[in-house]
Formats: sequence, structure tokens, C-alpha cells
Amino acid sequence: MEDAARRLLEGDQRTLSRMISYLERGDPQAAGVLKTIDPHTGNAYIVGITGPPGAGKSTLVDRLAELLRGKELTVGIIGVDPSSPFTGGALLGDRVRMQRHYLDPGVFIRSIATRGQAGGLPRTVRGITRLLDASGIDVILVETVGVGQTELGVLEVADTVLVVLMPESGDAIQALKAGIMEIADIYLVNKADRDGANQMATNITSMLQLGHNRTDWAPPVMLTTAQSGQGIDEVWEKIQEHKQHLTDSGELTKRRGLNRQKEFLETVQEEMTRRLKARIEQDPTLIANLDRIANKESEPYSAALEFLENTGFNAE
Amino acid sequence: MEDAARRLLEGDQRTLSRMISYLERGDPQAAGVLKTIDPHTGNAYIVGITGPPGAGKSTLVDRLAELLRGKELTVGIIGVDPSSPFTGGALLGDRVRMQRHYLDPGVFIRSIATRGQAGGLPRTVRGITRLLDASGIDVILVETVGVGQTELGVLEVADTVLVVLMPESGDAIQALKAGIMEIADIYLVNKADRDGANQMATNITSMLQLGHNRTDWAPPVMLTTAQSGQGIDEVWEKIQEHKQHLTDSGELTKRRGLNRQKEFLETVQEEMTRRLKARIEQDPTLIANLDRIANKESEPYSAALEFLENTGFNAE
Repeated sequence: MEDAARRLLEGDQRTLSRMISYLERGDPQAAGVLKTIDPHTGNAYIVGITGPPGAGKSTLVDRLAELLRGKELTVGIIGVDPSSPFTGGALLGDRVRMQRHYLDPGVFIRSIATRGQAGGLPRTVRGITRLLDASGIDVILVETVGVGQTELGVLEVADTVLVVLMPESGDAIQALKAGIMEIADIYLVNKADRDGANQMATNITSMLQLGHNRTDWAPPVMLTTAQSGQGIDEVWEKIQEHKQHLTDSGELTKRRGLNRQKEFLETVQEEMTRRLKARIEQDPTLIANLDRIANKESEPYSAALEFLENTGFNAE
Repeated sequence: MEDAARRLLEGDQRTLSRMISYLERGDPQAAGVLKTIDPHTGNAYIVGITGPPGAGKSTLVDRLAELLRGKELTVGIIGVDPSSPFTGGALLGDRVRMQRHYLDPGVFIRSIATRGQAGGLPRTVRGITRLLDASGIDVILVETVGVGQTELGVLEVADTVLVVLMPESGDAIQALKAGIMEIADIYLVNKADRDGANQMATNITSMLQLGHNRTDWAPPVMLTTAQSGQGIDEVWEKIQEHKQHLTDSGELTKRRGLNRQKEFLETVQEEMTRRLKARIEQDPTLIANLDRIANKESEPYSAALEFLENTGFNAE
């Protein structure tokens, strides 16, 4: 067995960090390690956490990590930073609050930026969870602001998805309509000490009754106050209950299998594009075209389709 | 000349709408029309508007449209909706406020969702601005929330980019650091009737002095209250000043040429990927692999690389 893979399976965090970096920048060493460790994965439970900025996701993650450490479970935290000029700051602040866990060897924290990934973000996060899993981490918490399709894609990796809202989330109803409903397993109304928490919970419950259920799991709506720790024990119990449900119904194995297939297909597509792009950028016809396009002698969109036709990339 | 292209050049809005839809769903008819109309483009001036949710972008767009109509200029408004479960609602509300312009034939409004585009969003928006341009629209306002890389890419299409902040935008400094600075031509502190507007303007100016200038245009920081119309005339004058600067320095022709080249390259890449993906998904080896991957007989990432190698997509 490769040295790196062995150290990873022994739980060495420096090796884990290095392998994640390899995976992020598309270094082929990552593929070898992933292949070797694969049979040793499948033990970690993955919880996805999403919600609008300010709902208290990071405080919740912090509290969950604390609770899990109290149960002597090891924790991995993956924070997905959407690299937004307008939300980047908030996430950065949140990270600072996690600092106390940095000293605990039973907690592994990694922030992943949407920029600077060799491949797509969902695909990279899938690989990272497998690395964490193999290193012996029991529970992986994947936190994302969920502002776009990419971040929703990231959540597919999770076994259980928590959607965190707060009493002031006036856009909650909109959120439920817009795709979150299909991936949410548990809803939390956080900051439940504020006015309107019960009303918000009632609204969500009503919305859920209108929607069609994709499985026979009816997503519960829970009240939490992450700041004081109120309701966190119950959230963890509910996650365990959902896990039991997935296991009993065979859904857990099925979901994870589908996720593996998706990772394969995503990797094929991304790598294919990257390699062909590198080849085509050397093409002399293409280079000659570029000048004519800039000078308005040639129209960009139709020129692109003509170029592909001449290169043999015909429409199906 | 094709009938559709002729009607578009005559300014027929129904044809314009239909051609945009063709472009969005990748219908080849769009390529023909774009090619025919290309020599008739280059007259419209494109203004990009970005900023955090709540800064008052849509009200500003509304006011600018009003001002331009007063000058008998025709206006196109492209609203880029990031299809986010958490921000979608706000944009929807903004659209409603624009309703009064819907009755004005001198204003063309179109919302573009990030989902449901056949190609990438920036590429589609480039094509759309050309269609609007050919139909005789004088000024195109492209509004985006700017939450991610895709939305920043959309702003590249603009000749002048406005960044709209407000006194409470505590994350403004962060925003300046995170990539906005490279594309902003004019900064607005909107809702300037609120406390802290001058302080915010001073903070932005200080930040700008620390940064390096990419051109010899020093981005001004202006105060506006879009709600009452305060400062809107001055914004339009400043946009005209920036246009003059770009024209005199030759930067306008250069930027637009580069944008055309980008559109060509983006189209080549996207179409290539789409066509190859369609071909490869029929591959029997791939289909056989999928079962093994789900069953953990094969590891997804390394299996993907091996598959590409066997199919002839070797690393460069």
C-alpha cells in the first residue's frame, strides 16, 4: 500500500490535509490514494447544513461539533465558501468563531472556496468526504450558504440535510418553493427565542403539507437556539432517527451508490472538457479566427459552431 | 436577408423576444440571425449594475430607465436572476416594481435565470445584448446580484460597471477585496439619506487608494438616493464621462473585441462539452462501469481517469 494512503488510514491529519489539496488542484496522486482507501470508507455519517446568511448555521455547526465531541465522536467540518464578493466576509467571520475547535485533534476543519478548484465543487467535496471518512472521522458536517446550483449540488453528498431558517426569514416560503424542499430532511427554525419563531415553524409545516413527499420520511420542523445550545440534543437525536430510517429502508445504500456514480460521471465530463480545451487552444484555425472575430469580420456565436463542425465535433 | 433578422433590425419586440428564447435554449436559428445582424451592432451602450441584495439596484435601474426615456433614448433591461432559493424572492419583488415600464414600448425588459440556459450564462447574456443592440436599443442595463463567479462573468459584457452599496453594507470593504474592485468603474453609495453614507463613501475611497489601478480611470464614489431620484442625473453624466474616456483611450474597441473573442471561446467549449457528453453517455463501457462503482467494486475518481485513458482522452 502506498505510504500516503497508509498514513491517511491511520488518521494522520497532515496527510489528510495534503491529500485534500492534491484533490483540489487535480493532482493525479489523489486518484491513487482514493482508489486504495475506497474499501475502508462508508463509516462516516455526512450531515449537510444550509440556509440563508445570518440564520446561524455556523453557530449550529459549532454546537453540533461540541455535542459530538462530548460523545467521543470525531468530527470533520467542511465549510463551502461561495467566494462571493458580498457574502465572503460573513463566512470569514464565522470561521473565526470556530477557532476553539482548532486546538482539538478530534475536530478537522477545512474551508473550500468555489474558486480555485481544478474540478467542479460538488465533485471535489465528494472526494474530500471520502478522504475524511477513511481517516476515521465519525461525523462530517458540510456547511454551505446554498446561494446557487453549485452549493445545492454540494448538499447531494450528505446523508441528512438540515435547512436552517430564522423567524425573520421572510423568504422562507420562497426558499421552500425553489428547490430546497427536494433535498431537505430536517428544518430548523433557529434563533427561536425571537418573536415569530412558532409562526415560522407553522408556516413551514403548512408548506410541507402542500408539497408532495419524495420519500416516506416526513421532514420535521424543529425549534433551536444555537447560541444557547437549546434544542441541539434533539437535532442530533432526529439526525440519528433519519439515519435509522434510511438504513431500514435501504435508502442509505442506494443514495450513496448514486452519489458514487454521479462523481464518476462528473469527473469524466470535467476532465474531458479540460483536456480537449487544452488541445483545442493550440489549434491554428482557432487562433486565426480570433483576430477576425475581434475585428467584426466574423460573428462569435456562428463562428464557434462553424469551427466545431470543421473540427469534427458535429451536432449529434 | 432572413425574415427574422430583418424584423429584428426594424425593432420588432416580438421577434426580439423570440430570438432571445432561441439563444437561451441553444436553437441553431439564433446563430443565423446573430450572424446576419452582426454588422449592425455596436451602437448600444451597456451598463452593468451589481451590489448586495437590498442596496437598491432595481430602484436605481428604474430611475435610470426613467431618465433615459426622458432623453428619448430606448432602454433594454436584463435582470440576471441567480435562481437562488434564498435570494430569488427578492428579485421577483423587484421585477414587480418595474411594471410601469412594461407599458412603454421604448423599454424592453427581460429576466434571465441562471437555470435553464443551454449554454453558460455569461455567453448567453453576450448574445442577448447583441440582439438588443441590433433592434435599435440605445442603452442596455444589465442588473445582477453578483453572488458568484457566474454573475461576475456576466458583468464583463458591460462597457461601464456600477457597484451599488448602501450605508449599512458593512461587508463593503470585503466586497472591494473580493474581485469587485477589478471590474467596478463607478461606485454608488445608495440610500444616502441614511446615517453613515458619507462615512461609507470615505471608506470606499480610502480602499481604492490602497488598490492598484488597472487603467488610468480612477473610479469615483458617488452618493445617490434612488428612491427619491437624488443623484441619478449625476450618475448618468458620470457614465457618459466614462464612455468618453473609454472611447478616447481606444479602450472601448479593445474591450469589446476581447468580449467577442471570449464569447467565441466560451461557445466552442460549451458546445464541445455538450456534444461529447451526449456521445459518451451512450458508451457501453461507461454503462458497465456504473454498476461496479455503485457496488464499491470500483472507485469513482480513479475509474473516471481510467475510462478517459481507454477512450483516448489522454492527459496532454
